[in-house]
Amino acid sequence: MNGWTVTLTEFDPAHQHHHETVLTIGNGYLSTRGSLEEGYPRDRRATFLHGVFDAAPLVVTELANAPDWLPLEIFLNGARFSLENGKIISIERALNLRNGVLTRRVEWESARGERAAILFERFASLAAPHLACLRVTVTLQRAGEIELRANVNGNAISEGAQNERLLHWEFVAQGEREGDLFLQTRTFHSQIELGAAMRVLTTQGNETGREFWDVRNDPTLVLRLSADPGETVVVEKYVAYYTARDVEKSRVVESALAELNEVAGWNPAWNANQAAWDREWERTDVVIQGDDKAQLAMRFNLFQMLIAAPRIDDRVNIGAKTLSGFGYRGHAFWDTEIFMLPLFIYTAPQIAKNLLNYRYRLLGSARAKAKENGFEGAQFPWESADTGEEVTPTWVPHYADRTKLIRIWTGDIEIHISADIAYAAHQYWIATGDDEWMIEKGAELILDTAKFWAARAEWNQLQERYEYNDVIGPDEYHEHVNNNYYTNRLSQWNLQTALDVLQWLEQRAPQKAHELKAQLDLSDARLEKWRDVIARMYLPALPDGLLLQFQDYLQRKEVDLAALEPRTISVQQLFGIEGTNETQALKQPDILMLMYLLKNEFSDEQVRLNYDFYTPRTDHTYGSSLGPSIQAVMACQVGKPNDAYEHFIRALRADLYDVRGNADDGIHAASAGGTWQAIAFGFGGLRVTRDGWTIQPRLPQHWKHLTFRFFYHGEQQIVEIGNE
Amino acid sequence: MNGWTVTLTEFDPAHQHHHETVLTIGNGYLSTRGSLEEGYPRDRRATFLHGVFDAAPLVVTELANAPDWLPLEIFLNGARFSLENGKIISIERALNLRNGVLTRRVEWESARGERAAILFERFASLAAPHLACLRVTVTLQRAGEIELRANVNGNAISEGAQNERLLHWEFVAQGEREGDLFLQTRTFHSQIELGAAMRVLTTQGNETGREFWDVRNDPTLVLRLSADPGETVVVEKYVAYYTARDVEKSRVVESALAELNEVAGWNPAWNANQAAWDREWERTDVVIQGDDKAQLAMRFNLFQMLIAAPRIDDRVNIGAKTLSGFGYRGHAFWDTEIFMLPLFIYTAPQIAKNLLNYRYRLLGSARAKAKENGFEGAQFPWESADTGEEVTPTWVPHYADRTKLIRIWTGDIEIHISADIAYAAHQYWIATGDDEWMIEKGAELILDTAKFWAARAEWNQLQERYEYNDVIGPDEYHEHVNNNYYTNRLSQWNLQTALDVLQWLEQRAPQKAHELKAQLDLSDARLEKWRDVIARMYLPALPDGLLLQFQDYLQRKEVDLAALEPRTISVQQLFGIEGTNETQALKQPDILMLMYLLKNEFSDEQVRLNYDFYTPRTDHTYGSSLGPSIQAVMACQVGKPNDAYEHFIRALRADLYDVRGNADDGIHAASAGGTWQAIAFGFGGLRVTRDGWTIQPRLPQHWKHLTFRFFYHGEQQIVEIGNE
Repeated sequence: MNGWTVTLTEFDPAHQHHHETVLTIGNGYLSTRGSLEEGYPRDRRATFLHGVFDAAPLVVTELANAPDWLPLEIFLNGARFSLENGKIISIERALNLRNGVLTRRVEWESARGERAAILFERFASLAAPHLACLRVTVTLQRAGEIELRANVNGNAISEGAQNERLLHWEFVAQGEREGDLFLQTRTFHSQIELGAAMRVLTTQGNETGREFWDVRNDPTLVLRLSADPGETVVVEKYVAYYTARDVEKSRVVESALAELNEVAGWNPAWNANQAAWDREWERTDVVIQGDDKAQLAMRFNLFQMLIAAPRIDDRVNIGAKTLSGFGYRGHAFWDTEIFMLPLFIYTAPQIAKNLLNYRYRLLGSARAKAKENGFEGAQFPWESADTGEEVTPTWVPHYADRTKLIRIWTGDIEIHISADIAYAAHQYWIATGDDEWMIEKGAELILDTAKFWAARAEWNQLQERYEYNDVIGPDEYHEHVNNNYYTNRLSQWNLQTALDVLQWLEQRAPQKAHELKAQLDLSDARLEKWRDVIARMYLPALPDGLLLQFQDYLQRKEVDLAALEPRTISVQQLFGIEGTNETQALKQPDILMLMYLLKNEFSDEQVRLNYDFYTPRTDHTYGSSLGPSIQAVMACQVGKPNDAYEHFIRALRADLYDVRGNADDGIHAASAGGTWQAIAFGFGGLRVTRDGWTIQPRLPQHWKHLTFRFFYHGEQQIVEIGNE
Repeated sequence: MNGWTVTLTEFDPAHQHHHETVLTIGNGYLSTRGSLEEGYPRDRRATFLHGVFDAAPLVVTELANAPDWLPLEIFLNGARFSLENGKIISIERALNLRNGVLTRRVEWESARGERAAILFERFASLAAPHLACLRVTVTLQRAGEIELRANVNGNAISEGAQNERLLHWEFVAQGEREGDLFLQTRTFHSQIELGAAMRVLTTQGNETGREFWDVRNDPTLVLRLSADPGETVVVEKYVAYYTARDVEKSRVVESALAELNEVAGWNPAWNANQAAWDREWERTDVVIQGDDKAQLAMRFNLFQMLIAAPRIDDRVNIGAKTLSGFGYRGHAFWDTEIFMLPLFIYTAPQIAKNLLNYRYRLLGSARAKAKENGFEGAQFPWESADTGEEVTPTWVPHYADRTKLIRIWTGDIEIHISADIAYAAHQYWIATGDDEWMIEKGAELILDTAKFWAARAEWNQLQERYEYNDVIGPDEYHEHVNNNYYTNRLSQWNLQTALDVLQWLEQRAPQKAHELKAQLDLSDARLEKWRDVIARMYLPALPDGLLLQFQDYLQRKEVDLAALEPRTISVQQLFGIEGTNETQALKQPDILMLMYLLKNEFSDEQVRLNYDFYTPRTDHTYGSSLGPSIQAVMACQVGKPNDAYEHFIRALRADLYDVRGNADDGIHAASAGGTWQAIAFGFGGLRVTRDGWTIQPRLPQHWKHLTFRFFYHGEQQIVEIGNE
């Protein structure tokens, strides 16, 4: 173990889908699951392109599995290479996190005794994001003919939300141009034109012939090579994608073909990719000495963020399963702003800005949602895709009773996301000092969400306080609660921050302040109302300092979660949706989440009190995958770095070890992003303000040394922490 | 117009889907929509095989669009023949109802000036049901090369219930065997193995080369021919299908390949098909003199029944859209028993028996449904597919509001189907005198449905009567009604017929009667209960003889339907589901339907009274497509043959002229089947009992002569009616 390579040394079809997720490669433009080039029954092969959505039943819209660039079939003296038959003498799959190259070395013997060593190498170039590269090296034991078939398959199947298999593409055209093949196709409903172009080269060996099989929607090149005993042949396959999101739709094919002409060969392409990755890791790497497994898993999680992050596009976001699987259909949640964005704010501010600009661009849809619900301002959708409309499914089939359905309420009442987005915008500003962005975009985002919060607040005449009733907090085990502390407090924060930002803007950019006040109708009366909402917001708490998850939380039934161990399903699966709602069991502890976000507002003692109360009430193992990394931060804060380590490891292994049993559907993006926060804000104890930063390290006992890095106001900071 | 050929002389993409439906061919095993061989954007090309269902979202299960045998691409000196580009000089598509052959003659010129006359001929052999045949004849104006590409495409797309595009198949294998290609694939969820084999022959012209393009899931043969100026080349394509429903799953490919070897050439295959059709039309033809349009349309409707009828399989039924489209997903309704079965009972008793055996085979599922609902006996599903489980969707998305759903209640409470099936079994017996079937199967079906009806009956203590509350009658504009007359009366009929059949059985086959009584627990007490339910069944009616659609029908609002004309949408679309439910507007008139079924129980005067009352309350134009043919019968019965003609024409044109605007989804099977009943029982006035038959002709004024034929107790009867 070198700390950089995830290695699998066997092929087990039972874990096929999990391993496809783990071995995903990507470059922030496209991403491809770790399926086998030659195919395997029931594989979930998928290539996703950021922002290429198409309508789908139930889930409104989903990322469309794009035409498949990966297929490469190999025939050894007529025997088709496949892991389904013949004999696997050895196999090793290795994902190099350092440069995003996935390799597979197989020694294989066909039923008829043809034996070969085959090496596959693939990467999605970080230097040329439209380009995917594949190389295969074949050494045939006996002399003979090697046939290779390389295609771009337009019949890519999406696994639907109800186990249906959907085809999102309709064929437009295909053909051959100077030896390269192309396919032009478009999404059926959203009508996004896509061009893919393929070049296949024999760079070592004796090519005796090639043919173009012009089968509609699956253009295929067939290469025939003759090899002497023990001779090695090398064939390279390059595929470039362009869509009408990148260039004019009439130019998608031409652009893809032109991209191929930029490839000067395997080594130049490889070197450019490697150099791009060097720059990524210089910004991002975390070094843990004394814990090899954590080291590798940490880099694996960072890698997942790096291959999903949009570098050249600010009209897309990162889905809850990145670009690595069909789960959550590519939709973005608060997971981005609260769990992933800090990593980017501190290591790649340009990416953070792209992600925030995505929200800014979709303010129009957020305003429409607020208006539709009878409010003013901007209410962001709980699930967001290409247009910023709410794309949360409203009903899903009941798992057991065909006459019943389950209503999904998050799209209606999990409203905290609007404050989460404002919070993230503010954090970006604090860490980067990017005043220009705050003036141009951030202020409007923070002010318009504040406007929503003031409109949404309900005045309780009897109690003389503002309330938010019938909501869902981050803890989704409890639906339709009143006065969720997290929601109420973050709304209050959003309103106060809006006032502060407006004041700052009036100093710093009075013209913009003037414009925004006019545009958003920020009258004195409205601002006065905001102050009133801030002042009289209801924040349910006990006198001793225990903050309440929500208003009547303590009236719910206590459950001894420890007594339920060991279990392999969530508390919600155990007790049912209704049953769990009636208990104090938490999917994640909102109060600790809030204390994490508003670090400077709570005393250590108050944090400890709440930590001790909520920790045993939380379903850490099968509740929210978002919880463990933040729980790790909070455990550090209360001086329990070894407890923190346990939560951290749980987050770290979510996908690599499939600890929740659902990694088939894709990477747990929030968990992956959160691991960096556990490092920086937990074990590192980093705190950042507009005036500077401090650390307060609390390393697990067995760690020898921790290094992490971040940018503060444009300057990279490298933190080195030894453990005495 | 020769009375046998449906001809289209233009190609209009706007009517593509309607014309695909109209030009469907089939043979009762497989059916193929009239799509173009070379494809056209957004075509709904489909081949359905009886009984090959696969799970689908929302609709439980659906007929899987099978691998596509139709594709044939033609390149004329490199120019791809397509109606999308180049110039159509002339086009004629003709469906010959006499032998099921669809032809297309096109004169076409490419953009580069390549001009050719092309003739396509296709049929699904009625003599060899696993076989589909296609011949293309090309005459190239200038000398040059003709390339033909023929494939079997495993990527067949099903149009889902929510406009999604579903793929039901997973690839298993493909290859070449002595020049023939094969594809083996299976449905993804239901795991039905399918083998397709393809042979392509040049029978005229100079073939200069052929290639096999072994692209996965789309095996393709490429033929190259050189032609002199004006030379004609002829190529034939044969595809055979076998599934694991036909043979062992290990033999599907082998069986398909073997089927090809049975083909002795185009003419022998053609002649065998023609001879099989001769026999069909000898049994089925209806001759109308003096009304050419009605003549052709009548045969078109009969043709639709003949190509959908299962001749060699009694485990399948005919879906509400036959095998001609995606509508209703291939599910069977009461449409079969009440609207289609009479045609088969009287013209092809073996087919009628197959269809009834389908229900008999699925008695187990009907018993399970009754039990699940807390009843005894057999309750048949409202929608039925392969297993006999209820496959009615329970919820469908609301057309306008994403947070709402529409509950489909028919699968829960449209219970009359169990009596309809018993009625059909009894009718089959009366017309055929097939005592053996009644003893072996029919009696059990009638007795077990009776058992359900007695269990389902609700005793109203106050009124001292039996009731069926919260049901839907045939008229689906009214949901959750109490004491639907049709349901109550047919239940009573079912119970009485069960008692009669049991008595008959005790005489005719005492051993079987004994067995059934034991098996179904037909104790004296139970039979006594049946008699009580019969005697005290509530049948809502007025003293003057007006039978009530349902208990409180007269309390619903009267609507002047005539005042709503002209309209192009149904009353339900006009007033909404709830709104229509509150009116007296009928989707179809249950009372007239009942009077039709129980012909001998109502006086002419009573029929007239009810006819006059219900006719103006019925949405004839856009209500149920099941209504018009039966309305035609009843109009004849009240002596209004010209009114009858209007309803008859409406039924006759449902698909040919797309009068309801939804023929895209497939043939209206019940309407098609009903047209024969309008002829026989309406215009012919046929009445059949166990003792014989009579006619009482009432022809429309302009008809000169009507001939129809039917079997009575195994003997064909030919009825010739002149109009004086």
